Amino acid sequence: MNEGQRVRRPGGRSARVVAQVHQAVTDLILERGYGHFTVGEVAARAGVADSSIYRRWGSLETLLTDVALTRLNAQSPMPDTGSLAGDLRTYAAQVAREITGSDGPAVLHLAVALSSRGQQGLQAGADLRAERTRQLQSMLDRARDRGESAPDALDVLDHILAPMYIRVLFGMVPLTPDYVDGLVDRLL
Amino acid sequence: MNEGQRVRRPGGRSARVVAQVHQAVTDLILERGYGHFTVGEVAARAGVADSSIYRRWGSLETLLTDVALTRLNAQSPMPDTGSLAGDLRTYAAQVAREITGSDGPAVLHLAVALSSRGQQGLQAGADLRAERTRQLQSMLDRARDRGESAPDALDVLDHILAPMYIRVLFGMVPLTPDYVDGLVDRLL
Repeated sequence: MNEGQRVRRPGGRSARVVAQVHQAVTDLILERGYGHFTVGEVAARAGVADSSIYRRWGSLETLLTDVALTRLNAQSPMPDTGSLAGDLRTYAAQVAREITGSDGPAVLHLAVALSSRGQQGLQAGADLRAERTRQLQSMLDRARDRGESAPDALDVLDHILAPMYIRVLFGMVPLTPDYVDGLVDRLL
Repeated sequence: MNEGQRVRRPGGRSARVVAQVHQAVTDLILERGYGHFTVGEVAARAGVADSSIYRRWGSLETLLTDVALTRLNAQSPMPDTGSLAGDLRTYAAQVAREITGSDGPAVLHLAVALSSRGQQGLQAGADLRAERTRQLQSMLDRARDRGESAPDALDVLDHILAPMYIRVLFGMVPLTPDYVDGLVDRLL
């Protein structure tokens, strides 16, 4: 039976395990950075068996991606301000804040690290992007439904997110509000 | 006396040491990846004393940056085709080829790694970017001298290089010629 397809009940033992494992991963990332701990260390820290982690997530890469996505969705939810310009400015400012925060580049370094972790890592990275792209696409679709003309999701990646990501990855910070707004205005 | 400011004679013992050390670094990068070897291991591989490396380069970060820049200048020299569109298209295609080659993302991963190696790493990364930006600026200045209107060097980073870098770092390859030309055309 495939654990990943089992319907999860909110609350209960299952939710507690997820919360404990996520917390353990978050702590280990803060202490050591992505890529510097094993499934066994996560399990020990969370007080669960290694096998529970493998059964639920399949691999360290998938677990890391799940944590990253949960974190992104909590800290950078897709805005709905009523206009595309407003949505994109709010979203870009959230991303800028997130990636320049105290442990901010962590998700970014994860996305980069995944691409050099073989097929499982590439798949985990693709899943992470697919989910965020799906959310971004909803924002763009809402704009089109209102009659606004909207760029493609990949244009948002290339011309708003990529410049901010690279500046942070290269240590070219801070990202000023003027700079971030400028990226949005230029794309629109 | 500051070794870094000493004039280097072409040829001779000095040039041999540089060549041997560069080769050792290139081999170790291919075998292990950036960040997974020490100055001592480079010295052993190159057949020189650790102190020779520290005297000449000061730190592993500075040495890695020197190797990266030498490599970039050899493989992606700045083109001079007579038009800005031609120059930028040629340059973008070179960069795309370089970063998607067999050990291609290596320089990219170096630039990312440097930003998390403290002050010396940040400085080395800044030096690497400053040198490449200076070369890019010459290309843009030549265009302006011919009467063409040219973007800023940072716009080239944000809207041509950053999208390609992020796609490679995230494993979203290949970079098709249409995609790469499209980035240039959009900026111009």
